[in-house]
This record gives sequence, C-alpha cells and structure tokens, in this order.
Amino acid sequence: MDKNYKIEVIEDVAGLGLVKGFKVAGVGCDIRNKNDMSRLDTALIVSDVLATASGVFTTNDVKAAPVLVDMAHLDASSKVKAIIANSGNANACTGKQGMADANDTCKFVADIYGVKKEQVLVCSTGRIGEFMPMEKLKSGILSASEKLGNDDQSSENASRAIMTSDTRPKTVLVNVEFNGKKFSIAGMAKGAGMIEPNMATMLAFLVSDVSISQNFLKESLRMAANKTFNRITVDGDMSTNDTVLCLCNGAGDVEISETDADAIEAFRAGIIEASRVLARKIVGDGEKITKVVEVKVKGARDEAQAEKICRAIGNSLLVKSSWFGCDPNWGRLTDAAGYARTGIVLDKIDLYYNDVEVLKAGQPVDANKPKWCEIVANKTFTITMNLNLGTAEESILSADLTDEYVNFNKGE
Amino acid sequence: MDKNYKIEVIEDVAGLGLVKGFKVAGVGCDIRNKNDMSRLDTALIVSDVLATASGVFTTNDVKAAPVLVDMAHLDASSKVKAIIANSGNANACTGKQGMADANDTCKFVADIYGVKKEQVLVCSTGRIGEFMPMEKLKSGILSASEKLGNDDQSSENASRAIMTSDTRPKTVLVNVEFNGKKFSIAGMAKGAGMIEPNMATMLAFLVSDVSISQNFLKESLRMAANKTFNRITVDGDMSTNDTVLCLCNGAGDVEISETDADAIEAFRAGIIEASRVLARKIVGDGEKITKVVEVKVKGARDEAQAEKICRAIGNSLLVKSSWFGCDPNWGRLTDAAGYARTGIVLDKIDLYYNDVEVLKAGQPVDANKPKWCEIVANKTFTITMNLNLGTAEESILSADLTDEYVNFNKGE
Repeated sequence: MDKNYKIEVIEDVAGLGLVKGFKVAGVGCDIRNKNDMSRLDTALIVSDVLATASGVFTTNDVKAAPVLVDMAHLDASSKVKAIIANSGNANACTGKQGMADANDTCKFVADIYGVKKEQVLVCSTGRIGEFMPMEKLKSGILSASEKLGNDDQSSENASRAIMTSDTRPKTVLVNVEFNGKKFSIAGMAKGAGMIEPNMATMLAFLVSDVSISQNFLKESLRMAANKTFNRITVDGDMSTNDTVLCLCNGAGDVEISETDADAIEAFRAGIIEASRVLARKIVGDGEKITKVVEVKVKGARDEAQAEKICRAIGNSLLVKSSWFGCDPNWGRLTDAAGYARTGIVLDKIDLYYNDVEVLKAGQPVDANKPKWCEIVANKTFTITMNLNLGTAEESILSADLTDEYVNFNKGE
Repeated sequence: MDKNYKIEVIEDVAGLGLVKGFKVAGVGCDIRNKNDMSRLDTALIVSDVLATASGVFTTNDVKAAPVLVDMAHLDASSKVKAIIANSGNANACTGKQGMADANDTCKFVADIYGVKKEQVLVCSTGRIGEFMPMEKLKSGILSASEKLGNDDQSSENASRAIMTSDTRPKTVLVNVEFNGKKFSIAGMAKGAGMIEPNMATMLAFLVSDVSISQNFLKESLRMAANKTFNRITVDGDMSTNDTVLCLCNGAGDVEISETDADAIEAFRAGIIEASRVLARKIVGDGEKITKVVEVKVKGARDEAQAEKICRAIGNSLLVKSSWFGCDPNWGRLTDAAGYARTGIVLDKIDLYYNDVEVLKAGQPVDANKPKWCEIVANKTFTITMNLNLGTAEESILSADLTDEYVNFNKGE
C-alpha cells in the first residue's frame, strides 16, 4: 500500500528549538547540592502560544509528585504553556511536601508567563526520598526564562539538563510532508539509568507545530508510546516518574483534522517515528550495556501472548547474561518463553537469530551453529520466535546484563 | 496453641539412607562426556517395598521429558519402587528421542527390580538440547544397583550425584514424635544453578517411613512445596525440569490416617520443615550470591497481593544489586512494590529491615539510617513491608545479584 506521506528523520539534532514557536533553555542551579552550577539540571520548554497537550505516565502504584500534578493539570486544562523539568532530584516518595513543591513549581513558572498553574507541567528525575531544593530550583527557573531561545545551544542545553546517568543527550527531528503540506515533530529524552541510589526513570518530551484536538493527540500519543516507549526494557524496573509529554502549538500551517484521513495517517506516522528513535536511544544508552537486542514473537494466538513472551525473554537474567557473553543459548530462550505460561508448544517453535534458523519445530538446526555464534557477537541483532499457533506478533527492545551494571547499581 | 508433636531437625546429614526401608547409591558414569568417571552423576533411590509416591513439577509450558514421564507414571500408579536421577544432562528440548530415552531409563530400572515401568520415576538436570548418553547411563544404573546401601557413604554419594553448580550437597533429616509414636522424613536437594550453558533447575527428593494414602500425600506435598520451594527465587528463571518427589514406604510403625488429626498435623509439620530447610539451602547456595534475604509482605488485602509484591521485590535487578552493595535502598523497594500494580498506597506503608523502622507511613525514619546500613551489611536479613491495607501476608527467600553471577552465566 502506498503511503500518502513522506518522512525525514534526523537523529542527534540540537533539540526542541527546531520546531516553530517553541523556545527552550537548560541551566544549572545545583539541584544535586554539590556546589556545582556548571552541571545543567533545569530545562524549560515554552510555547509562544498555549499548546494542546497530552501525556502518558507510569502505571506504577507509587507515582511521584510531578506525575500526580501533571495528570491533574491535563485533566483540568487541554492547553499548556510550558514544561519545567529537572534532574538530580525525583521529588518521589516525598509525601505532602513533595506535592506542595511540585504545585509551587508550576505556579512559579505560570506567574512568569501570566498563565494558570494548570497550564504548566513539571517533571523530575534523580534521587528519591529527598525534598526538592525549591530556592535553587526557582533561581534556575528564573535564569532559564531569561535564556530561552530557539538556537542550537539553547536546545542542546535543554536536552543535557534532563540527563542523569545518560552518557549522551537523546534528540530527534521528524519532518513530515503530505499533500504538499509540511510539519515537524522534535523530541528529546532521558534514559534508563539510575546513578545515585535511585531508579531508572525515562522522560520524553515531544513538540510539534501542528494544530490538533487534545482527544486526538491523546489517542495518538498513547498509541505511539505503546508501540515504542512501552516496548523497551533495560532492567524490567518501572519507575515512579516515567513520563512522556507532547505539546502541539499550531504555529505551522497544518491542522490535523479528525476528518482528514491523510493528515491522521501522517501525524501518527510522525509521532511513532519520533518515539521509536528516542526509545531505541534510551535502550542503546542503558546503563553499562554492550548490546541492543530486538525480541520478536510471531505466530502467537493473540498480541497479549506475544507480549508476555517478549517480556519474559527480554527480562530474563539468564538470557541477558548469555547475550553479554555472546552465547547463542537457545535453551534459555525457550525456557523463558515457557515460564511465561501462555500455553506454547515446544515442538511447533521456529527460532531465528537474524535470518538464521536455530530451532525448526523445536529441534536445533545444529549445522547453523557457527552462524548463530557470529550473530550473537554483534552489537545488535534480532531474535525471532515463531510460535506457529496463530497470526499475532509483538516485539520489544532489550539489552544485555553486564557485570558492570551490577557494580554500577550496587550503591553506596 | 500447644502442638501435639515434637520435631527434631538435623541438617547436613548423610542422606536418604537414614530412613528405614530405603537404600541409595551415587555413582559416576561420565554423563558429561568428559572422560571422568570420578564425577558422581547418577543417583538411585530404592525402597524395599513399593512406596506411596507423589510429585510436584515445574509449571513451565516447556517441560523436559523426565517431567512428562513422571507425571504420566504417577497418574498410572500410586506406588513407586525407585527414583533414578542424573546430573550433567537435562534431557530437555530433546523431542521424541528424549521421551523415548526417559521411558527407556525407567524400563531399565524397573526390569532390575521386577516392577512395572510406571513404578519408576526419573529426573535429569544439566545441559539441555543434547541427547542422553543412554549406554553410559545404563552402565551407571547397573553399577548403582550393585552399590545400594543405607550407610553414610552411599547416602552422601547419592546427594552429591545430583549436584550441578551446587558447591555442596543439601540434606536434612526430620524426626517427628507424636502421641508416643515416631517417624522420619529425610530429604536431599540440588539447587538453583546453571553451570554449562543451561538452566537453574531444582530437584528435591523426600522419603519417609510412614504409611499414607496417595491423595493425602499429594495434598501435603503440594502444600509444603507452595510454602517453601515455591517461595524462593535466585534469578526468577523457572526451569523446565524442576521436580519435587516424595516416597513413603510404610516401613515404620506410623500410619498417617486421614481420620487422625494429630497424625495429619505431625506429618504436615514434618514435610514442611524438611522442605523449608532444603529450600533455604538452595537459595543459600545460589550461584555466586553473597546474601540471603527474606522478603515479607504483611497487611495485604489478600495473599495474592502479598505474593505479587514479594516476587516483584525479590526479582528486581535494582533491589538485588543494592543488596550486593549493602545499600539500604528503600526507594527501590517501594518502586518495585509499586510496579507490581496491586493497588498499594505509599502513605500507608511501614517498612523494616529486621526490626528497625525504615519507613513510617511512607516517610523515611532518617534517624535510624545508621542501623539500616548495619543490617544490610549482614549475610542474612529480613525486609518486612506492612501495606496496612488488610491482614494477609506472604514471604519469599531471595538472594543478591552479583557481578560474578553475570560472569558465571554469560556462557561460552
């Protein structure tokens, strides 16, 4: 089927300032309490006009204060002026004081721009169980508001300010063209890492110049997150702060009308592509990993079965250890698939490393063994398990488990 | 409430030969194909008379041939003469040939003792995806049948023959006295380890001199396994071969009648105690671990909620890494409890390391921090999380995750 749109994807761009009508800044205000103002820790994203906004949040029972505040704000207001994000302190497990601080942060930003508190969103990542140093954060916000720009340096500073144990900023620009019209989506993310005695929070911020209804944005963002950010795993630990936000300010020429099938298709493709690139960057920069592995399960009875097996394989310590050791250990793969307890039949399973057959109807194709070993030594490869039970499929991106991961995370 | 029984538990005994009417042997027949007959790899357990038998098996969709054969045998016959067990080859993922080999093994033992094939059970642990060296195994069985005894050396050889990456044999003897009567339960187990590119199989064999019905034995064994073997985790990976078997031969004076409440209580207490000791030994000898941690969840709405949270905590890579580092990281504990998604409320949670309060109603009791750090540096400690939502509770035994575990399991 021909697509009615064209997509250009540019990775590792300056950042969000590349999209019309957005200005950003990243500054340092020593949120980590280390007397170091040079470490960027506060990012401010501001839209010239109020933007349609939506978010997808962690489903952890224990949600950090900023997550609870953002959920309430998006319920109260479909339009948002700004996002304020900090690294170094997660404002999680901080009780009433934490909620007051998150609300106060939004109010402080809102007052600068003369909008309602509900028209500001807040995200935090870093150390948990400690109160936010509010005076420092506020001075950071003031400084950021004075430095706002759409130049490359401002964009890059913002994408660096949300990093914790990330080794590099993660950004993408997606330009979409359809029916002679053009729009852009830019994104930045921080990844699965937890330096300081803490947790693997992922944050992603997407901005676009389209005009769109909140309902349709919500639906599209949820779908994109499900296909991308919810299909990655580094250590299987879901954070209290995971957040994906998207602002669409209508500063461009394109309206994504719910009656325009081409527009819908193009916007969805764009937001999925931007999310996919960021999700892959998050796994690829996972703590102390050496390999990114795509796990695909095909021929499942339904998507739920395929997803369960993908996650069992992608989170198995034994499987992940064997990837680290370049060991093409199919036994651990079938074992993990089996303990997902979805009703698989070993004798029906075909298994592949990239395109090379490993199991045919549950039996090893030993002649191919030299080729498996070659593939598993690569930095990225794909494992495909065909259950031969139905037609559903799912995939996730995972990473290996290394001795350095354990040492990095063993703490104090 | 007073107990109507007295239990004596003796750990690290010689083994199963200590129970009346059982003889055992352990021999080496080079199942690992390393030209090394000195490595014990074949254990034979024989009851003088046919014994009432029951088993609990892995619930993995992918079950190894011996598991499938044993399930069929126990369905066909309530009485069993012998158990034949080997290490070095798991006979898993071996298709029709594997099934034929497992059946053939039982037939071979049955012929020696003039019983039916269905009156022999078989267990295998070790490398998967390779066919059993049947000629070697048969010569091992013959040799074992000639060496059967109830002396200490025979018992110890049997308990060593089932070891894979275990560093020591695991045995227990439980003597129970009630209403002036005495019976014994002895057990041996092999643990959660996977040297060779394989999987964490646990096997446990219990024998007793009571006479008992198969139905009641089945019920008691299942209950005991649920409270003990199913409440341990080293790496969260469930094997294709996990098996617990119990034989009761009636060689003693005690009948466990279903109408005798005292007998029932005493037998259950005995089998639970024997299983508990073996389960703890399995975790304590987990691959490259340095710590054994009991995770207790109290005040849950129901046992299912408590168990889910226990498992989320006990299997979290971040939690396990922090134990390794002696880091009293309560944030990772509440994070894991939250992503079990059972509907917990952080503000209600009380958390303890041993008896020291860490969180009170979700807030850290910072004054206790020096004490937490002391406790987490111990080789064993208990984490208790009170959800304050109800009255149900559950616990599991877990272990830390070490850099050496990863290196040990990275394979080729």
